[in-house]
Amino acid sequence: MSADALRLVLDPASVAIIGASGNPNKIGGRPVDYLRRFAFRGRVLPINPKRREIQGLPSYPALSALPIAPDVAIIAVPGEDAVAAVDECAEAGVKIAIMMASGFGETEGGKAQEREMAARARARGMRVVGPNSQGLANFGTGAVVSFSSMYLEAPPQDGPVGIISQSGAMSVVPYGVLRDHGIGIRHSHATGNDCDVTASELAIAVAKDPDLRVLLLYLEGIADPHNLAEAARVANARNLPILVLKSGRTAAGQAAAQSHTGALANEDRVVDVFLRQHGIRRVRDTEEMVDAVELYLKGWKPSGRRLVVISNSGAAGVMTADAASEAGMPLAKLSEETQAGLRAVLPRFAATANPVDITAALLTNSSLFSQILPVIARDPGVDACLISIPVAGAAYDIATFARDAAAFAATTSKPMAVVATQKLVASPFKSAGLPVYMYETRAISALDGFIRHRELIARAQRRMFNGPRVSVATGKGKLLNEAESLAQLASAGAPVVKHRLCHTEDEAEAALQALGGHVAVKGCSQDVSHKSEMNLVRLGLTDTRQVRSAFAHCRRILENGGLRFDGVLVAAMAQGRREMVIGAHRDPTFGTVVLLGDGGKYIEAMPDTALLLPPFEADDVQTALQGLRIAPVLRGVRGEPPMDTEAFSAAAMAVGRLMLESPDILSLDINPMLVGSAGEGCVAIDAVILRAEA
Amino acid sequence: MSADALRLVLDPASVAIIGASGNPNKIGGRPVDYLRRFAFRGRVLPINPKRREIQGLPSYPALSALPIAPDVAIIAVPGEDAVAAVDECAEAGVKIAIMMASGFGETEGGKAQEREMAARARARGMRVVGPNSQGLANFGTGAVVSFSSMYLEAPPQDGPVGIISQSGAMSVVPYGVLRDHGIGIRHSHATGNDCDVTASELAIAVAKDPDLRVLLLYLEGIADPHNLAEAARVANARNLPILVLKSGRTAAGQAAAQSHTGALANEDRVVDVFLRQHGIRRVRDTEEMVDAVELYLKGWKPSGRRLVVISNSGAAGVMTADAASEAGMPLAKLSEETQAGLRAVLPRFAATANPVDITAALLTNSSLFSQILPVIARDPGVDACLISIPVAGAAYDIATFARDAAAFAATTSKPMAVVATQKLVASPFKSAGLPVYMYETRAISALDGFIRHRELIARAQRRMFNGPRVSVATGKGKLLNEAESLAQLASAGAPVVKHRLCHTEDEAEAALQALGGHVAVKGCSQDVSHKSEMNLVRLGLTDTRQVRSAFAHCRRILENGGLRFDGVLVAAMAQGRREMVIGAHRDPTFGTVVLLGDGGKYIEAMPDTALLLPPFEADDVQTALQGLRIAPVLRGVRGEPPMDTEAFSAAAMAVGRLMLESPDILSLDINPMLVGSAGEGCVAIDAVILRAEA
Repeated sequence: MSADALRLVLDPASVAIIGASGNPNKIGGRPVDYLRRFAFRGRVLPINPKRREIQGLPSYPALSALPIAPDVAIIAVPGEDAVAAVDECAEAGVKIAIMMASGFGETEGGKAQEREMAARARARGMRVVGPNSQGLANFGTGAVVSFSSMYLEAPPQDGPVGIISQSGAMSVVPYGVLRDHGIGIRHSHATGNDCDVTASELAIAVAKDPDLRVLLLYLEGIADPHNLAEAARVANARNLPILVLKSGRTAAGQAAAQSHTGALANEDRVVDVFLRQHGIRRVRDTEEMVDAVELYLKGWKPSGRRLVVISNSGAAGVMTADAASEAGMPLAKLSEETQAGLRAVLPRFAATANPVDITAALLTNSSLFSQILPVIARDPGVDACLISIPVAGAAYDIATFARDAAAFAATTSKPMAVVATQKLVASPFKSAGLPVYMYETRAISALDGFIRHRELIARAQRRMFNGPRVSVATGKGKLLNEAESLAQLASAGAPVVKHRLCHTEDEAEAALQALGGHVAVKGCSQDVSHKSEMNLVRLGLTDTRQVRSAFAHCRRILENGGLRFDGVLVAAMAQGRREMVIGAHRDPTFGTVVLLGDGGKYIEAMPDTALLLPPFEADDVQTALQGLRIAPVLRGVRGEPPMDTEAFSAAAMAVGRLMLESPDILSLDINPMLVGSAGEGCVAIDAVILRAEA
Repeated sequence: MSADALRLVLDPASVAIIGASGNPNKIGGRPVDYLRRFAFRGRVLPINPKRREIQGLPSYPALSALPIAPDVAIIAVPGEDAVAAVDECAEAGVKIAIMMASGFGETEGGKAQEREMAARARARGMRVVGPNSQGLANFGTGAVVSFSSMYLEAPPQDGPVGIISQSGAMSVVPYGVLRDHGIGIRHSHATGNDCDVTASELAIAVAKDPDLRVLLLYLEGIADPHNLAEAARVANARNLPILVLKSGRTAAGQAAAQSHTGALANEDRVVDVFLRQHGIRRVRDTEEMVDAVELYLKGWKPSGRRLVVISNSGAAGVMTADAASEAGMPLAKLSEETQAGLRAVLPRFAATANPVDITAALLTNSSLFSQILPVIARDPGVDACLISIPVAGAAYDIATFARDAAAFAATTSKPMAVVATQKLVASPFKSAGLPVYMYETRAISALDGFIRHRELIARAQRRMFNGPRVSVATGKGKLLNEAESLAQLASAGAPVVKHRLCHTEDEAEAALQALGGHVAVKGCSQDVSHKSEMNLVRLGLTDTRQVRSAFAHCRRILENGGLRFDGVLVAAMAQGRREMVIGAHRDPTFGTVVLLGDGGKYIEAMPDTALLLPPFEADDVQTALQGLRIAPVLRGVRGEPPMDTEAFSAAAMAVGRLMLESPDILSLDINPMLVGSAGEGCVAIDAVILRAEA
């Protein structure tokens, strides 16, 4: 059954409830009630051996007694009975079972049990949602097969938002807050432990819903990045934004997730780059998630990040300017024409530069607001607008402000956010269809996140990233020696230091001459990964005697240590300005990961690195470099020329390609990659490759 | 008139209103209405030459017609009339004038005008609040001399909170939100442009109000840190927490502040350290400010940072664990006894390690919550508690949960925060007197900020920081040469490299021998601050010939360049592991500032430094060092020993003392301060002192 067929669970023709209850407040009674309450258009088939009728519907004693094989079966019985029910469903030809019982993958030993159960079901063509699932809810079709009480507390209204969550609570918390804001929601699905159908797989099906305008995911573990990548591909192709709250960012969070949904830990920095490269926005918390939604529903097309701030409070302007600056949103420089237009309207002491401070004069002249908006709307230097009215009272004509602001947004298609703490201000703006936030910092965070996400999606659309390759070798592997490692890098097109592997003192002497008379001599052995610590490195040698003696020294140390002697590497003393690093490894979930950044011996203690998932391009590397702490040094400071980030990018891409083309390489570490000034290139001075044993 | 006398403005016996209006919605009418509405116990004296009666009170034609000299006069007329009124008030013996007109210090030229006006008033013993002030409001005395409309929208209730703001809006926005949360507020004052009375000076008077439990300040500029320091001293002496929202953090924010309240820019990092050293918590935005308040009102005494998380949702536990980890709040490790107690109550698949996940079983057993709280309350490893109930419905007995949670907090005195998005959950907890937040991240941020602030206050109480010294020399100053700079440092007790200033080649040769035969030779001139760039530095010289030649070389370069030759410095080649930096300068507002951190040539491009205001102690330096990026290296990584931070701290304290004892030093820069491993000490290798010209 393909992922596409999961659309059946969103719009089934029939739903059986195993363990149906006459009490709508019980797990087996709530879905029956919901299916009827929300006008499910298919058949509802309660199963309960003790009852003839459930909530007014005829009840069946067993699955085998049903007149048809239902598309979906809800399994509302606990423990071993639930496992038995799954097997019965598969046997009976059910397409998808939704298992609500807890106590499986989130407990010791339960993980294996739920996997076996899912495998048995799959072998018979049935898919399983759960266990530990609160159920799924589609308010477009009325297929509300959920036992959450939230849909009673916050009555549903169909709309353009989809929510998919591994957690029951997080499928309905955003739902509740958004409904409270008057926003309609189509999908609210809780997949639980994801023993078979995963949240990401369901996201592929939901992303195909043509009415959807924004898709929210809550994930505690990502076990199937290929499904999430496919969901992103589907979504990006139709400009559907996906926002993910991936919890378990920290060790404490991962431990908690393990005992909640049985999620296995993901490396958080890899999650970051995976999501980013797929055009998915990662939100930090529920607040950022719900704050984001409204901006996506307006059809606004931001063309840049230059913000105009309009307020009747100078303090709001100051605080907004701070928040915008810190988010990297510059305040728009209003044109002379715009400022003259504002001066013509506003009092003498009002600020007509951006932030525009209408001052308390708004109290005595309610039309000020309406007069300045068209002036600002004409300024081509403005990309987005924030209106803050922190205080107003009965004397203000807020309804008119709100109507004019909505007109501004509609005519310019520029994103707009409104800040208001008082209900009397917030309500008219909300009614006019504008996103309203309590505080300037939250509004800026929402605008900034929205505009950045549009940039991210545009990038992902241009790139159509292929997703992770997961078929790589595993096992503990064996180290290549330095000469072999450098050779493999060189053959992949990465620049490596000029060197010769020498097996005799005569060869070493010849290498000294050939390499220009200034060399490093290093003992070479596949048994040694830290040469310096074994005193196997001699730098800056210039005469024959030194080189011959260094050769003998290295050989003696290795042989005395009982370590394999692979020869002695004589390398040119390379010129360069900064020791950087390029590494790569295979993430067990996300596949190949390339690391790049500042090098040196404190790379673990004071890391300054970025990750990329190959395949990537030069501008991805440049963007990653610009995010490093050393970025100013790379650009050139104190009169120094810029560094050769072009050569470095090419080297990083060569490493990325090598990793994709050589699945037998488990990991790779170039440290240092010595980088010169622009035009001077870079060279790998040392490298270690770990290769899978044949 | 002392700052103490400002208490009169909080409790005047009589208030005149110059420009009083019969229309309560006008600036001159609103205070008259408020004084009557909020039962001001003193006399209200409207002044309006055109009216015999204002809002039912007899009106006077002019100040001179009043039967008494009023304690306070509100000046509600604009522009030049307002300036004239200030002068008349001073003449008439008014104690404090509150000037509401805008268009002074926040506009070009207006700054000088308002300063002169304030000086004239002060010369006659009158103080001025404003201009650009929305007025002051004391709901304890009914002295509500303000034209804000907020007190109509959100009716006041006297309480333990004080708000002082340079901005009108920010005096009432926190007021409005807190009142909406049911919190009572005593003070809500807007000081405006602070031409005379400043927000900080008013804070000293307000901090003495014995009923106050928390004091909130909004500042756009700090011009008088000595007043803020005194307010902190008063507050710390009685455990009154002060929270400051200091805006104008960024260049854009400072520009906006300049045109709002005429605030001059403060160096933001100095503001940070000033506030911290005085036990004042700096909040980032209004949200953090209002979110903080409730925790301070409960009398809770946190003894540590170990958090327990209790929820009916696993996801809430995961997200809380993430947020707590990131804030540096460890999850409490529950004792075996506690966990056994929880297992006895909770279902098999519930998590009994922290976070405690009650699971959906709470739906069928409402007593679970009440049963586990006493078990957790007995665990001595718990310092604070977060309860998250993201979803609940009619079937849950929330009122009981809330009552039990409040009892837990009351009996343990441990800080507690509740997370709830649904009103049906939030309301009973609020009614039970517990702080309720919408999201886990906000609750953690509030708890973390509260506990950190208590630590900060405790530290400030132990230390009783003396506040900034501002009487330092100014002007452009002149550079001391290296020898003079090192000599001054050495005399102050800072370790400097062994060296001799030599005036002949023979002296240089003798120095080589005396210093152990391995030296650096540097040209010494007060005209040169960057020796390396002028080729005046020779390192690692070991023989007589090299040293004599280097001497001659340095002399020649200086003399050929027409630069003063102060001799040649011959210095021992010092051993050390890392080049660090200690600097000091005089901030025009905050006085002496000491900077310390990592050294090297990229100190501007990749800064890793911290600031301290002297006097400070060794543990202040150690705390500052632990906040640096290089902290792991200082502690020792990769098998390296720790570095001598003790010697470095002593050196930093010596610099702090030197700066306090030598007001003629404008700035000082030790770069590098070479630091060795623990026990090896540190030495200043190079130093530059800028001294005021006599």
